[in-house]
Amino acid sequence: MKVLDQLYEGKAKRVFKTDDDQLYMVEYKDDATAFNGEKKGTIAHKGVLNNKISGWFFNRLTDQGVKNHLVQVVDDDHQLVKRVEIIKLEVIVRNIIAGSMAKRLGLEEGLVAKTPIIEFSYKDDDLGDPLINRYHAQALGVATKEEIDTIISEAFKINDLLSQWLDEANLILVDFKLEFGRTPDGTIILADEISPDTCRLWDKDTREKLDKDRFRRDLGGVAEAYVEVWRRLQALDQ
Amino acid sequence: MKVLDQLYEGKAKRVFKTDDDQLYMVEYKDDATAFNGEKKGTIAHKGVLNNKISGWFFNRLTDQGVKNHLVQVVDDDHQLVKRVEIIKLEVIVRNIIAGSMAKRLGLEEGLVAKTPIIEFSYKDDDLGDPLINRYHAQALGVATKEEIDTIISEAFKINDLLSQWLDEANLILVDFKLEFGRTPDGTIILADEISPDTCRLWDKDTREKLDKDRFRRDLGGVAEAYVEVWRRLQALDQ
Repeated sequence: MKVLDQLYEGKAKRVFKTDDDQLYMVEYKDDATAFNGEKKGTIAHKGVLNNKISGWFFNRLTDQGVKNHLVQVVDDDHQLVKRVEIIKLEVIVRNIIAGSMAKRLGLEEGLVAKTPIIEFSYKDDDLGDPLINRYHAQALGVATKEEIDTIISEAFKINDLLSQWLDEANLILVDFKLEFGRTPDGTIILADEISPDTCRLWDKDTREKLDKDRFRRDLGGVAEAYVEVWRRLQALDQ
Repeated sequence: MKVLDQLYEGKAKRVFKTDDDQLYMVEYKDDATAFNGEKKGTIAHKGVLNNKISGWFFNRLTDQGVKNHLVQVVDDDHQLVKRVEIIKLEVIVRNIIAGSMAKRLGLEEGLVAKTPIIEFSYKDDDLGDPLINRYHAQALGVATKEEIDTIISEAFKINDLLSQWLDEANLILVDFKLEFGRTPDGTIILADEISPDTCRLWDKDTREKLDKDRFRRDLGGVAEAYVEVWRRLQALDQ
């Protein structure tokens, strides 16, 4: 496997072409941003930790039949993934009210949702990733009705699995963001990453935040939180 | 039928109790507001026109089997309606992109949606009626899954019927807002009104606006537009 030109550099990852045109190499960075890029910084060893944490989740999801882009974690900060066309939706699943939803709807952070909530944001930095619904997504041509049905059912299934694993690690899965991709043959599969960058994780006993909110809200102990999440997940494999 | 105490005064209507505790009397006002109450004014004869226009639509919908709150148009500016508990959702159906959606998604006004779009806003003035989706509505306890399924299928059916009638009146139904209510026995029925206050209507040939956007955007000829819509609907009955 030969790594070729960089295809794209995002806020937390770089994506490279390889000599197999069906495969990309992803490099996880220590860079962290928040509030649509307004706040910038780095979190020590985040690239390595997120590469491992996300690899752990994606491998477990594969075992449970959830189709995804991961081929393999290659080294400390690289993973090989399938080439997909990313669907321009941030798919957010919420079990507990927090963050932007608490603010928009005037609700207290920590309120348990009666049923899990799915939200779509339209991935467009210029528009500030506006909240949309399935009908907007269809009308905008972002995805078809059938693709959105698949995304919703996969997202709920992933929520069930992640919530269960994280519960075993004494963590509450408050909410998380997923992205999906379309393979060359038109199959919708899970892409991007699952990590403390993309999940809100609270300790089950203390409700301490163990995710990127420590960076967003200047709570300190940011790097330590990522280490702790990885430590707890590894312990599940013992 | 004896009209008793006023129950509620809204931006464009007053609601009164009657001596039948299952029926309310609604009075249509000439008052007009826009931008969540920031802009205020009156439109000459709007109360009378909207009472008649909305009555026309609701009676036609009844004939097509769409359950709704209208009992009868009583006089120029009053109608008798069934008592319902209003569901705290503004249900917006869009056939053509305009207004807030055009702005939020950076789209040109006038773009035809590939498929009709449904939006829900959570009726809460303090929060500015935020856009929500069906999962938020369920989690907030605004309506059950089954109630939301009913609302969506009724809204699409109403869109088909209204679009067809308005097309016969040489008008394009760009978008409109519906509200639904829960009867004492738990049935979901259409409530509120359907009028140029709650619909965007464009002339099919000239694309001239014949609705409240003339008031919102200071286009002049506001009262005349409402008269013209009523004239065209009446002509369909000839």
